[in-house]
Amino acid sequence: MFRLPRLAPFACRRQFSSVTPRFPCVEAHATRESRLASVAASPAGPEPAYARPNPTSYTTFHATTPLPLTYSQYPLPSFDIAYETWGSLSPAKDNAILLHTGLSASSHAASTAANPSEGWWEKFIGPGKALDTNKFFIVCTNVLGGCYGSTGPSSIDPDTNAPYATHFPVLSIFDMVRAQFRLLDHLGVDKLHASVGSSMGAMQSLAAGWLHPERVGKIVSISGTARSSPSSVAMRYAQRSVLMADPNWNNGFYYDALPPHTGMKLARQIATITYRSGPEWDARFGRQLRPLLSDASASTPRTPALCPDFLIETYLDHQGEQFCLRYDANSLIYISKAMDLFDMTAPALDALHIPEANGAVLSASAAPDATRPHVTSHSKSHPPPTNPPAHLPALAQGLAPLAKIPTLVLGVQSDILFTVEQQREVVDALRLAGNDSVVYYELGGVWGHDTFLLDVLNVGGAIRGFL
Amino acid sequence: MFRLPRLAPFACRRQFSSVTPRFPCVEAHATRESRLASVAASPAGPEPAYARPNPTSYTTFHATTPLPLTYSQYPLPSFDIAYETWGSLSPAKDNAILLHTGLSASSHAASTAANPSEGWWEKFIGPGKALDTNKFFIVCTNVLGGCYGSTGPSSIDPDTNAPYATHFPVLSIFDMVRAQFRLLDHLGVDKLHASVGSSMGAMQSLAAGWLHPERVGKIVSISGTARSSPSSVAMRYAQRSVLMADPNWNNGFYYDALPPHTGMKLARQIATITYRSGPEWDARFGRQLRPLLSDASASTPRTPALCPDFLIETYLDHQGEQFCLRYDANSLIYISKAMDLFDMTAPALDALHIPEANGAVLSASAAPDATRPHVTSHSKSHPPPTNPPAHLPALAQGLAPLAKIPTLVLGVQSDILFTVEQQREVVDALRLAGNDSVVYYELGGVWGHDTFLLDVLNVGGAIRGFL
Repeated sequence: MFRLPRLAPFACRRQFSSVTPRFPCVEAHATRESRLASVAASPAGPEPAYARPNPTSYTTFHATTPLPLTYSQYPLPSFDIAYETWGSLSPAKDNAILLHTGLSASSHAASTAANPSEGWWEKFIGPGKALDTNKFFIVCTNVLGGCYGSTGPSSIDPDTNAPYATHFPVLSIFDMVRAQFRLLDHLGVDKLHASVGSSMGAMQSLAAGWLHPERVGKIVSISGTARSSPSSVAMRYAQRSVLMADPNWNNGFYYDALPPHTGMKLARQIATITYRSGPEWDARFGRQLRPLLSDASASTPRTPALCPDFLIETYLDHQGEQFCLRYDANSLIYISKAMDLFDMTAPALDALHIPEANGAVLSASAAPDATRPHVTSHSKSHPPPTNPPAHLPALAQGLAPLAKIPTLVLGVQSDILFTVEQQREVVDALRLAGNDSVVYYELGGVWGHDTFLLDVLNVGGAIRGFL
Repeated sequence: MFRLPRLAPFACRRQFSSVTPRFPCVEAHATRESRLASVAASPAGPEPAYARPNPTSYTTFHATTPLPLTYSQYPLPSFDIAYETWGSLSPAKDNAILLHTGLSASSHAASTAANPSEGWWEKFIGPGKALDTNKFFIVCTNVLGGCYGSTGPSSIDPDTNAPYATHFPVLSIFDMVRAQFRLLDHLGVDKLHASVGSSMGAMQSLAAGWLHPERVGKIVSISGTARSSPSSVAMRYAQRSVLMADPNWNNGFYYDALPPHTGMKLARQIATITYRSGPEWDARFGRQLRPLLSDASASTPRTPALCPDFLIETYLDHQGEQFCLRYDANSLIYISKAMDLFDMTAPALDALHIPEANGAVLSASAAPDATRPHVTSHSKSHPPPTNPPAHLPALAQGLAPLAKIPTLVLGVQSDILFTVEQQREVVDALRLAGNDSVVYYELGGVWGHDTFLLDVLNVGGAIRGFL
């Protein structure tokens, strides 16, 4: 609650100009800039975490065979993939699970001997957990395009000995998965027990089944989509716009200068809004004000300002501040764009450069069971959807190569970024394509898109049961 | 659909660095900056529309009695309110309707003789229309804090002869309404036939009933709220952050330099996302690509870029570009903040400086009929809500002064900024406060928050029927 000063009598007036306005929330950007400038000049080197890679905390697979790319006439000449593993590969090499990450995650999904710090899916990986290391060999990579050890825009271009920056080619989700399968080849894994992912990782999980249906035993797709919606494109576009407008971004060429930390902070604030839900904020923050500075007494008047007053604002501010130097701006832009471009409807797939599609496995025409009528998978327990989107048949056609792969789809009703409508769409398209082994769970709760990081009981339970 | 160039054979490689990346979406900001700089130096004067007020197109009420302010110890010494009217005031002066605007609108709700251009609610105002000028005298003002003729941050501070800029005091919705009632006093209107508003205007409409229940005959609240939710605060905070981070903003002191046009564009892009709905974009844009430049042939390869590819992106870009020089950045910040601060729960109201609350009309304790049990308004046709928010009793207590005012509440199911839950909350709180003349309509459709600007048939019909 604000505690306002007493009203002055009308006769008493003040010049509003007598107090110089201050904006700590804006000054924070300049303060960060000064700090970065002084650190950059120090022997310890620059601050951004991604500028100090630690190749002893993960393993690096260096590929020297060029990687064909979806949107480029020319292949990537060579590339690195950083990865970590948990559990042991069986002698038959048939117990591997490829775990795909969300946009900004590293390969560090859980603690390891080499890196004992907590991973982003710590509670889901281990003996008896959702990804059970007593049974499975879990592999997680930093994606191609990322900044945590895998080749991306911040990597050195061998042709110029300088960072690629925005000379880096536009990537697709398929390119990322293709690079991961090169790693699997290197590890001697012919067939995955499962391909598992959440958010962007769910896109990759589906893409893995599409590129190599014969190499993927099961698919887990959590809070993902097979076709990015215009509203999710809008949300990511807003973030990219803000970031690219930061003068420090400098068309992507900032690696020998200060990074666009303010743009990154602002972009992350927008992203954070899409990761949770209004009902969570109602319960968690309501209309509470931010805590007072410790030197303010309980009787000090407290009037509103143009900078943050409410706890929800300081929460967003904090999330942005935490992130703005932890991730490479160009990686964010490239990977965010790859998500926008993801579309598994048949016409969209047909237009792409997908070298794997040269063989027997093409979209509809060569689906494992393309001759069966499209409706057979809809039984009494799974009737055809009542109000399907117009693109559902095209999506079913695109997903036809996945018709024989048992698939778990899990969605969250409070997710505003990857809505339940999109989850149901994937399920309906798979069933329409003839897949009669689709399991679908829809979770309640208020955690929105981030549910996959938080709900160990329900998300973890569904995965463990399915695998 | 993208049309990709043919894949080059693997042996053939290219240096990615051979092409210099270009970013037209970022260059647009610099281009705009240059254009503004050259126009500012020309005799025609600066470009921003609000810098060229046209006082012949509206009427200005100049108040010389100081205006007490909710969050300031000191009153505003004098102020202007720009307004326009439609229809004729009856000899008894009992047919006036005060129409409140959304955040960025001017007083020009419909065309007039003085300004024949189309107004923002053109189709809703006129003979036989929702606001029927055959019966009613409609008054619409630019709000206090705005930049279209009413006093706001861009106005000249009489104490300094320079624009207030961020010396301007933080405003509340109640302050805006208080200034409007000064205008009504000036016009000789003791009692309004109705107070009508959408979005922020709906907040003002409710606030008018609270400040002066004896002067408001009916209330219309469309897509508004009586208590801003943390998720709407988050959305507006993201916009203010982006805007205030623009170096041109300069702590609000930009009136003798170039305005923060890039920050305004980015802020408007974010706002636009909240004004419509995902389902609308699914239907309107889907995954269509932006049109090709006219000189591109149908066979030219078309590869994705980091700047906009999809129609939804160019739509947001266009909305931002259109707006960025039409509205004053400081007005946006102040009015956006006033919306965040709006909270009609009793404890929040009790903490404010509300001079009007000195008299008989206080929140619950002096409600017209505070002695009647709180549940009486819930009849068989309006049972008590099954899962009310925890703050509902406090909101009912705050809205008690409105217990005798017939009120129309209208909400839209696809509105993500002012959700239907918030509309139902207003309705439930009014009924709980003992108001048995609450009419509630909930509209479907895909237009989201902007429905009030677009749906003449349903929104207009409900208003006409109610008035």
